[in-house]
Amino acid sequence: MSNEKKVAVSLDDPAELMVPGFQAAAIKAGIRGKDRLDMALIYSEKPAALAGVFTTSQVKAAPVLLGMEHLQGGRGQAILVNSGVANACSGAQGMELARNTAAMAAQALGVKITDVQVCSTGVIGEQLDPAWFAKGVPALVAGLGSDGFAQVARAMMTTDTVAKVEKVSLEIGGREVTILGLAKGAGMIMPNMATMLSFIMTDGAIAPDLLQSMLLKAVERSFNAITVDGDTSTNDTVLLLANGVAGHAPITAMATPEAQAFQQALERLTRNLALKIVADGEGATKLITVRVQGASSRRDAEKIGRTIANSPLFKTACFGEDANWGRIFAAAGRAGVAFEQNRVDIFFDAVQMVEQGLGLFANEAAATEVLKQDDFVVTVDLHAGQQSWEIYTCDLSYDYVKINGDYRS
Amino acid sequence: MSNEKKVAVSLDDPAELMVPGFQAAAIKAGIRGKDRLDMALIYSEKPAALAGVFTTSQVKAAPVLLGMEHLQGGRGQAILVNSGVANACSGAQGMELARNTAAMAAQALGVKITDVQVCSTGVIGEQLDPAWFAKGVPALVAGLGSDGFAQVARAMMTTDTVAKVEKVSLEIGGREVTILGLAKGAGMIMPNMATMLSFIMTDGAIAPDLLQSMLLKAVERSFNAITVDGDTSTNDTVLLLANGVAGHAPITAMATPEAQAFQQALERLTRNLALKIVADGEGATKLITVRVQGASSRRDAEKIGRTIANSPLFKTACFGEDANWGRIFAAAGRAGVAFEQNRVDIFFDAVQMVEQGLGLFANEAAATEVLKQDDFVVTVDLHAGQQSWEIYTCDLSYDYVKINGDYRS
Repeated sequence: MSNEKKVAVSLDDPAELMVPGFQAAAIKAGIRGKDRLDMALIYSEKPAALAGVFTTSQVKAAPVLLGMEHLQGGRGQAILVNSGVANACSGAQGMELARNTAAMAAQALGVKITDVQVCSTGVIGEQLDPAWFAKGVPALVAGLGSDGFAQVARAMMTTDTVAKVEKVSLEIGGREVTILGLAKGAGMIMPNMATMLSFIMTDGAIAPDLLQSMLLKAVERSFNAITVDGDTSTNDTVLLLANGVAGHAPITAMATPEAQAFQQALERLTRNLALKIVADGEGATKLITVRVQGASSRRDAEKIGRTIANSPLFKTACFGEDANWGRIFAAAGRAGVAFEQNRVDIFFDAVQMVEQGLGLFANEAAATEVLKQDDFVVTVDLHAGQQSWEIYTCDLSYDYVKINGDYRS
Repeated sequence: MSNEKKVAVSLDDPAELMVPGFQAAAIKAGIRGKDRLDMALIYSEKPAALAGVFTTSQVKAAPVLLGMEHLQGGRGQAILVNSGVANACSGAQGMELARNTAAMAAQALGVKITDVQVCSTGVIGEQLDPAWFAKGVPALVAGLGSDGFAQVARAMMTTDTVAKVEKVSLEIGGREVTILGLAKGAGMIMPNMATMLSFIMTDGAIAPDLLQSMLLKAVERSFNAITVDGDTSTNDTVLLLANGVAGHAPITAMATPEAQAFQQALERLTRNLALKIVADGEGATKLITVRVQGASSRRDAEKIGRTIANSPLFKTACFGEDANWGRIFAAAGRAGVAFEQNRVDIFFDAVQMVEQGLGLFANEAAATEVLKQDDFVVTVDLHAGQQSWEIYTCDLSYDYVKINGDYRS
């Protein structure tokens, strides 16, 4: 819909991050030392429809297991988040802590425990100290305010170098609807620091089942279409709360202009957040879109795209600004998808480097110029069908090795 | 068999690399400038049984396609190899060159063209100049000698820092049988330089079909169980020639002591060559064995092992000598295999860091000591069954990024 607009927001002006009917707070709870924000609370003044997408890893952190349980009702009212310790691989003790901290928040806010989601990001295998929450949760509740979201975005960070926020507004039934998104994540798993987290708040009114479908679709083309290093964390979580405070008639079916408009706005928001994660990938100097087209199925396109985007050889070549199409071609070849190598075209932005499987060496200088940019598109056309898929990735630099190799030394 | 022995060989004493009935030569053909060995020939004085294993990539180089064609008869007598240009993604012109150079060698040696294998490794997408071969092949044939294999091992190198040779001898039917193996490969694909190549020569007498089975089995546990960066090249090739010159009764069935003895010797040889490739991995400072055991199927163990061994986060942690079991656990979790996280044990050599899914932090100092070694084993026990699998890999260092990012600049 033409009335959708991205709203430029600054973390320096907390008022810009408000969403009607939502409050937030963040504190320095001592998990990461004295001087870092490391615990935060998001609160909806009314019970809200809740949608959630969690890690597909077999190794799920305690808060993920609890979150999946609490999502059953499709309803939520609060998100309690901490950084520093992931509460993953933490056994029965970790599970008990997740449950107890949700209960603390529920009691302090006067909401049901099942309406509280708990999220953690940080070191795997360590235990969170209940004392941090016994002291922290009351402080968070006391500090709640509509201007608290910038601090929440900062408290979620681990190796992120910038806090990530996006805001979109649109009109539904004559009312202005706001969607605010926060995200963290810089590698899929950090130096024992885990996770991509994103929390999205809207005052739109949307039925829980529909909200879940909308979030799944939006995640598919955003958070599930990025890769820094191919790793999926034990804690990955995306939550979407819709509290209906905007006051329009509730949206209950996808086949309505209102639902389509909201979906489009949500997808723009999640895509922009996802791109911010990639651009802040550990050591990243380039944002690379890998587009595979002309595939006979979307799944084929995805398999090839993921293989290229995760190839260390491709990623180091991008870091070196080397238009090394041989590595792209070779990565495509090992993706487990049958194709005719003599039909393949490869482009860097609009510069064609491979035509029907053969290199166009005359274009190499132009392609190298493309790679000198901070942001470019690699297109592989299989000429085997009509399906396509895109994935966003970053290069592999010295700093990636430094961040991940030297972290604890 | 107790009579099998590894034979220590030195590249400085070419006589140590002899195999009865085989000759070899290498020259500076000018493909890689004036001063590097870049073309070589291996010749069996008698037609030999031939076994071959080629890349599974969809993007197969011209010599691979020709090699698969020539392997049909199970017979071979010569291998012509060049480094510098891979003759991959080279279209009809590349295919014609491969065929023509095989014909040149066949004519000069007086053998059938189908008894000649051609192998190339180097830059993808460029064309080889026929003039290099028109001049080079006669020079190679003229230079053939039983002491030429050290030079061949050097001529095959691309970014390899050392030439890789292994020799084993055993007794079959009262005769001494020698197996000599040469290999190259340092990343699975180099900076546009491709490929793992290995050529194995024996004077044993083995029927072609059996030889092929033996090679497949040996490759499975050696060259197919190593990874530097998860990439499979367009040119990967392993060839095994058995010329029967040792004079024992031909081996024709696997269920004989002679076949078992040869298989065991062959596996030792290929495993040692494979480990040399990993140890010479681009920028590698550590040789890491990832062992997954207690799996309900060998395939599950392999999937988890490969995911860990290719995880950049795991590999950078190894470079940083950080006993970061959380990354191992998280990589296992995303491998697409169902398991109970509460049963998992993880060890660094004999030091247990995870017991029933929980970290044993008291052992971290001891585990860190293990990681300071050049060579260690990471064991993941799922306690879900009796199957196991091992893969060999190396760490991911600054130098990997340097070699692969800066290669052409």
